[in-house]
Amino acid sequence: MSNTAAWENAVRRVVPYTPGEQPKNQNVIKLNTNENPFPPSPSVEKILREYDTSQLRKYPDTDSVVLVNELAKRYNVDSDNVFVGVGSDDVLSMAFLTFFGSDKPILFPDITYSFYDVWADLYKIPYKTLPLDDNFRIIKEDYNIPNGGIVIPNPNAPTGVYEDPSFFEEILKANPDSIVIVDEAYIDFGGLSCIPLTKKYPNLLVVQTFSKSRNLAGLRIGYAIGDKKLIKYMNDVKFSVNSYTMNPLSQLCGAAAVADEEYFQKNLAEIIRVREYSKERLLALGFTFTDSKSNFLFAKHNTKDAGEIFSELKEKGIYVRYWNKARIKDYLRITIGTQEEMDKLFSALEAIL
Amino acid sequence: MSNTAAWENAVRRVVPYTPGEQPKNQNVIKLNTNENPFPPSPSVEKILREYDTSQLRKYPDTDSVVLVNELAKRYNVDSDNVFVGVGSDDVLSMAFLTFFGSDKPILFPDITYSFYDVWADLYKIPYKTLPLDDNFRIIKEDYNIPNGGIVIPNPNAPTGVYEDPSFFEEILKANPDSIVIVDEAYIDFGGLSCIPLTKKYPNLLVVQTFSKSRNLAGLRIGYAIGDKKLIKYMNDVKFSVNSYTMNPLSQLCGAAAVADEEYFQKNLAEIIRVREYSKERLLALGFTFTDSKSNFLFAKHNTKDAGEIFSELKEKGIYVRYWNKARIKDYLRITIGTQEEMDKLFSALEAIL
Repeated sequence: MSNTAAWENAVRRVVPYTPGEQPKNQNVIKLNTNENPFPPSPSVEKILREYDTSQLRKYPDTDSVVLVNELAKRYNVDSDNVFVGVGSDDVLSMAFLTFFGSDKPILFPDITYSFYDVWADLYKIPYKTLPLDDNFRIIKEDYNIPNGGIVIPNPNAPTGVYEDPSFFEEILKANPDSIVIVDEAYIDFGGLSCIPLTKKYPNLLVVQTFSKSRNLAGLRIGYAIGDKKLIKYMNDVKFSVNSYTMNPLSQLCGAAAVADEEYFQKNLAEIIRVREYSKERLLALGFTFTDSKSNFLFAKHNTKDAGEIFSELKEKGIYVRYWNKARIKDYLRITIGTQEEMDKLFSALEAIL
Repeated sequence: MSNTAAWENAVRRVVPYTPGEQPKNQNVIKLNTNENPFPPSPSVEKILREYDTSQLRKYPDTDSVVLVNELAKRYNVDSDNVFVGVGSDDVLSMAFLTFFGSDKPILFPDITYSFYDVWADLYKIPYKTLPLDDNFRIIKEDYNIPNGGIVIPNPNAPTGVYEDPSFFEEILKANPDSIVIVDEAYIDFGGLSCIPLTKKYPNLLVVQTFSKSRNLAGLRIGYAIGDKKLIKYMNDVKFSVNSYTMNPLSQLCGAAAVADEEYFQKNLAEIIRVREYSKERLLALGFTFTDSKSNFLFAKHNTKDAGEIFSELKEKGIYVRYWNKARIKDYLRITIGTQEEMDKLFSALEAIL
């Protein structure tokens, strides 16, 4: 006898994405989910303190005008070039659902953000992964094949490897008939954005997030910038899922965070400084790593097993990220924390190694 | 020459849902989107004032434990019987995507929440609408046909007509092989919930929202209660779309609102009182209406055209909802506001009629 009910035949069976752990213990040093180690702009706190709570009885602005306009201004585009969603995962998921309806496979690197194949499976989108080279670089010529779309993070995750906009321009030139998504979750930590290219390539969608460089992973804000035709198609799908996704606090706090450019730049400079310092320390400890332009390092130890280092750090209350997967099982992904957190990490590593 | 790019062939083309207007003018009397006229529980404000904003740098709890546990306690179920999402639209959309993968059509009333057919189109789910009778009642025997699932709001929208749980129990008995969703967005305004039936029928999913009876349309919180197997399937799909949808403020404020049962009950009693008062006033003005058990009335005037009344009210700064659609084009859907707002509506109607 089976325990399976008849209705289960119609269920969408999926293997969900596994996010990094969010330990309840506040004393843990969390270097495992690429969060920003610093609080958001003080303007965010001001909004939470002063917001007229009685307004929460009403539905929010469906168009998130205040947030969209602030992003448009910041990135020198029009408001109808901006799509916003509940984190860049929501934005990317919506883009997959909107644009990737071809019978041809979409293309992305074999080592990349591990949500891409989850969305493809969920929405029954065929896909093909293209191997990075031995230095974890994307081989752009590989993308010159028939496809139903392309999605590439820049810098790539979890490698941290960055490519210039000219690199993506070559991919775009070779693929005028495909939607090309550049997922720039980590671009602010030292890279150049492809956003300016959206004015030249109407098939380019650039996705960014408030979760890393804008210190607001909690508020769930992501956005896409592209030709207004792309944004219109995405909004049609978005408004076919849920009319009101962005609550007023996320809209207002997000806009305030974007407006505080000084805080943003100061914060980035400090993370980049600590990253470069961390590279030196890791090198001295016997690690090798890619030249990360993100807020994490992807590092491999000369002698000691990555899985063991991961476990021993966790015992000491320091969480980093580890995947027991082909090609990357020798690596740890270490988020750049504060100077103090990183020094604790290096002390722990000294003890372990 | 066509302006259509090649990639547009792969775009998911949809006709999105049209929500009620959210006018920018704060002086408007908004009786068009069934929002609660009263502010949320004071405990919500306390959270916004005291929340440690620095925590927003981190991702929220993926499992929304604080909110899920509070709902489980309130509804006398286990935590693994509760699914939460970004408003009940997010929850319903996720349920459609998760459960309605059959080749057989899903069933819902011809006059009902106008998002059902939008989700069905979006996810390419076949559907069949079953006509209400002339009194806008659901004919439950009509649902005894092969189907890929059933979804019915109770009270129904925009009619406000309510059926007892025994009515749904008969539909459940006739459909053991289908997922049956009862959408209880308006149940707290005088109806009995089907939640207790979820313990008896493992194919029943009951969906509710914080947007109406809990005064929190702005924070975007909805939930579903059902057998833990159903909730697990929905969470697998949810975690294949976005790991972090519920921000910490929605989680905490939502839990606080549920915990304040006294405020909730007092608020409901007042809305029900004003609704019954409004029925008398509308009757005196020459309207007929269904016996609504929701926070709105679905009313038709004896002589004057509904579209005209709608437009004339709007000119006077009073927004109600009107659909120029077969079978309901003679009706207005009027949200129950405060006593003062309703009196202004009746004065305006006296002037118009």
